[in-house]
Order: sequence, then C-alpha cells, then structure tokens
Amino acid sequence: MPDSEFALIQDYFTGGGEGPAVRLGIGDDAAALAVPEGHVLQISTDTAVEGVHFLATLPPTEVAYRSVMAAASDLAAMGASPLACLLSLTLPEREPNWLKAFSSGLSEACEQTGLSLVGGDTTRGPLSITVTVLGSTPAGQFMTRSGAQPGDRLCVSGHLGDAAAGLAISKGELAVDDARIQGLLLGRYERPTARLTLGQTLRGCATACIDISDGLLADAGHVAAASGVAILIDSASLPLSEALSASVPLPQVLDWALAGGDDYELLFTLPSGMRVPEGCTEIGRVHVGSGISCDRTPEGMGYDHFAR
Amino acid sequence: MPDSEFALIQDYFTGGGEGPAVRLGIGDDAAALAVPEGHVLQISTDTAVEGVHFLATLPPTEVAYRSVMAAASDLAAMGASPLACLLSLTLPEREPNWLKAFSSGLSEACEQTGLSLVGGDTTRGPLSITVTVLGSTPAGQFMTRSGAQPGDRLCVSGHLGDAAAGLAISKGELAVDDARIQGLLLGRYERPTARLTLGQTLRGCATACIDISDGLLADAGHVAAASGVAILIDSASLPLSEALSASVPLPQVLDWALAGGDDYELLFTLPSGMRVPEGCTEIGRVHVGSGISCDRTPEGMGYDHFAR
Repeated sequence: MPDSEFALIQDYFTGGGEGPAVRLGIGDDAAALAVPEGHVLQISTDTAVEGVHFLATLPPTEVAYRSVMAAASDLAAMGASPLACLLSLTLPEREPNWLKAFSSGLSEACEQTGLSLVGGDTTRGPLSITVTVLGSTPAGQFMTRSGAQPGDRLCVSGHLGDAAAGLAISKGELAVDDARIQGLLLGRYERPTARLTLGQTLRGCATACIDISDGLLADAGHVAAASGVAILIDSASLPLSEALSASVPLPQVLDWALAGGDDYELLFTLPSGMRVPEGCTEIGRVHVGSGISCDRTPEGMGYDHFAR
Repeated sequence: MPDSEFALIQDYFTGGGEGPAVRLGIGDDAAALAVPEGHVLQISTDTAVEGVHFLATLPPTEVAYRSVMAAASDLAAMGASPLACLLSLTLPEREPNWLKAFSSGLSEACEQTGLSLVGGDTTRGPLSITVTVLGSTPAGQFMTRSGAQPGDRLCVSGHLGDAAAGLAISKGELAVDDARIQGLLLGRYERPTARLTLGQTLRGCATACIDISDGLLADAGHVAAASGVAILIDSASLPLSEALSASVPLPQVLDWALAGGDDYELLFTLPSGMRVPEGCTEIGRVHVGSGISCDRTPEGMGYDHFAR
C-alpha cells in the first residue's frame, strides 16, 4: 500500500512528541493532551508562506525554526507556559535533504521552547508552514491586548529593528563590513527568540501585552484599539542594539525599530508604580484617547498582507 | 494605519466565536479555552490545498464547509466532543464575495458541529485552508487506531463510495440522469458529515476507530498497522447507497467504496459479542497477522499525497 506520506511524517517529524502533558502523540486521528488542573488552554496558529513571509533563499532549518518561534511568541504574549504544537506543512515535492534540514530546525525550536510536536499534516502544494501552538496559564491569569489603562508605562523587551536589518541583509539590500555583526543581525531575523520566560513573569503585572510581529507602531496600534486608549511613543527612548547602530545611519535604524516587524519582542503596559523588568525599556505612555502618537513617522508602516 | 488584514478577519470570521468553553475568542494573540474538568484535550489539524484536495470549481461555501467537516471528522474518530476550531486561510487576493460565501460555509459547519471559531490567521498566497479542531473526552476514554484485537468485528457507518461518485460528477467524469440523485451524490462529496454523535457513542465500546478520508482499504490499513493485526474485508458486505447503485455499474461502485476516500464515515472494530450500532454495517473481521486482505483489488488504492 502506498504509504509514503505517512512514512514521510514518521521519518522526519516524530522527534519531541513526548512531554508531561502528552497523552497521545503523532500518528493517530488526533493528539491528546492533559491541560494542568486549574489551568486554561491558550491556542494560536500562524502561517508562513514562501515569498510572502520569508524569502525562497531562507535555509529550511531556519524556515522551520522561525515558524515555530513566531507561533510560540503568541504564547509568550499571553504569558502562557508552552505545552505542544502541531505542524501543517505544504510543500511542492518530497526532497529528503530539505526535509531533514527542516526537521532539524523544527526539533531545535521545539526543544528551545518546550513545545512537544504532537501532530500535523503534510500536503503537496506551494511551500507554506502553519504552526499551531498550545499553552496554558492558571485560569483567568492570561494577558490580553485590551487591559492598558491611561497612566500605564509602555515597555518593550530587548532591542528593536535588528530583524528588519537582518531581512535587508538577506535581500542583499544591506551589507555590513564586520562579518560577526552581519551574522548577528541576520540571526535576529532568521532565528528569533520567543520571550516565553518574560511573558510568564509579566503575567499578573502587565495590564496588556502583545508580541511585535507587524512592527512596533502597528502592534502598539492593536493594543491601543483593543484597550480603547491612546499610546504615545518616544522615538528617542527606543532600545537599539550596538550592532544595528554601528551598521546603519540613525534615520534608517529608527524606521526599522518603529515599523520593521519580525522582532518578536514583547510590548506591554505596566501600571506606573511598577518596576520595569530587567532587559526591558520604557518607550512611552498610555493616555486617554485613541490611536498612536510618535514624534517620528517612518516610511513603511508595519506589515499588513492585504493592504498592499 | 493600514489594518485591512485585521478588518478582513473581523468582517467575515467573527461569527460563532462563543461557546461554554471559550474564555477569549478571536482578536488577541491567542484564544483561551477551558477544557472540562477531568477531560483530556484532543487536537487535530487538516490542510486542504486548491487543485490538490479540492477542485478550483468547488464553490467557496463548500470549500469552507468541507474543510471544517474533514477536520471535525478526526474528532469523531477519537470519540471527542467538539470544543473549538481555528482557521488559517491563505488566499490569493481579497474578494469580498468569495470571502462572504466562504464565511457562510464556515459558520454553517461550525454550527452543525458545535465548534466555536476562536482564532486564525489570514495570509496572502495560493489558496489553502488549514483547520485545527479541538475537542475533549473524559480522561483516558478516547479511541485510537491501535486497539483492534483478533476476533473483533470490523464495522463502518453509513454508505461508502458516494463521495467518490460526487467527485467524479464535479469533474465531469460521471453524468447521472436523475437530477435528484446527481445532487445527492455531489452533496456527499461537497458536504460531508462528521459522525460526531456516533463517535461519542462508540467511545468505550469500539476497540479502535478511524475516519475514512484516504479510502476504506488505506484507512483499514492504518488500523491494522497501528494495532498490529490483520484485517479481512468482505466486499460483498460493503454498505452501498441506492443512489450510487442505481447510477453506476457494480465494479465501479465497489472500487469507489474500497478506495475512493472522502466519505468521512467511521471505521471501527467491535469486540465480537457487541451489537453493531444502528446505521452501521459489519464488513469484515480482525485476525492475527498483519495487513489488509480483501476479495477484490480496486484500480486506485487510496490517497497518498507523495505517492503519485
């Protein structure tokens, strides 16, 4: 019986299908998971299409790694502890080397995040990767985009704009003399890190949280809209990496930090009395009103698939 | 701020996002679900690509309806009660009429199955639909493919082969004089029904269960392989609809019933002493050994995406 689709899945994607919550892993009609008692489940799904979300030149290991991290980043924004993930892979043809490399990036990201791969689907078609992630928080303790209050401080983790620089490097639009710095910026695009530990720390202190995938201004806009508040961003306070500042003129750096996207840092609001966590920076304030104000308007404004 | 992607999702896909388990619906980084106490979660994901899983001529309402039902059918095979679903929609461009029709099929299938649409992702690219479904069963009570025992009876729900005839009709390869019968067969392909109630009834009686998506022989093969048993199928006992038998010569009917796929009926094994449920038919037996035996070998043998 021709069973190569199932063999394909079993050959490459069975690693990591174990974990304390997994009651049934890959290979049946569905997976089964035990959600910790008193916890609520969080679920999110994220699709990456070749040529739209990533370049055809992105190595398969990084395609997989990035897809898992981008999805896991949504769990981070909720403050969730990772449980499991499912992969729907649509690919043009079976190429063992491609699959092997893809699978290694997948395993690596699953290990890094603590997500157990429990299922998926493999179909033939134009390359596209959908990762569904599941996590949990104690009931009622997850963060949303909608809790920001006037007076709150707007904070962000890590550095902004590096991923946009990395994308420019991989497109051949930016060349950096220092190979170490070039590799570092490229890595920030190809291998983002979901801020899962920070997300869990913020649960219970932050009033609202979102991950930066579309770009700072766009994602801050989502928080403002969901919370019914105005957000004021101070471009002088944006956290910029030395690598980026050393390689690119300041106006471009600021544009990327404001609108570049793909950083997968956490953007959150804190009540004014609360300490800004280590590794995070205050970049603005929440006010009564609506929309985003910033002392600078970058050329590109976030990413929206059907707006262009 | 260009927010049309989000507007698109909100315009068309916010219906049905409520339900007893839903703690947070569409519109945040992730959805939140309360799994009933003492229950285990089941999750499955299913991708349908235009031109691979469905014809470009399939109306958008049916594309959506079929995608949800195909995914829900995996929950039926586990014996799970439906909780929620997520949709990842990749589509070439925004067409309001297409989206409206797609959305109506989505809502209809969600209502029929009791699945609350709690999230998703919309991206631009070649048309493909990934539906992730979540359900639950009391802990330890879900069905798998791996429990079939020598001596068990092999049973199937409903009729087999109608969906393959419906596909042949939509391809223009089969013409049926009687318009009512033609519509009936077409509907079995375009609007399958996930056997959710039957699945929940079988929980605790059936030793193994799977839904028929690849075709009877292929799916029985999965049960045999997972259970480590041999399965003998008697082609004379296959349940065939009057509509199909009246429209197509018997050899073709049997080939479709054995290998056609897309029926989304449940195939299950019952201990020999147990009564076959109403609307179901005994079609074979489980034996010591491995593989599938049938008194007839159809020309096509199930569906496997990377085998052709």
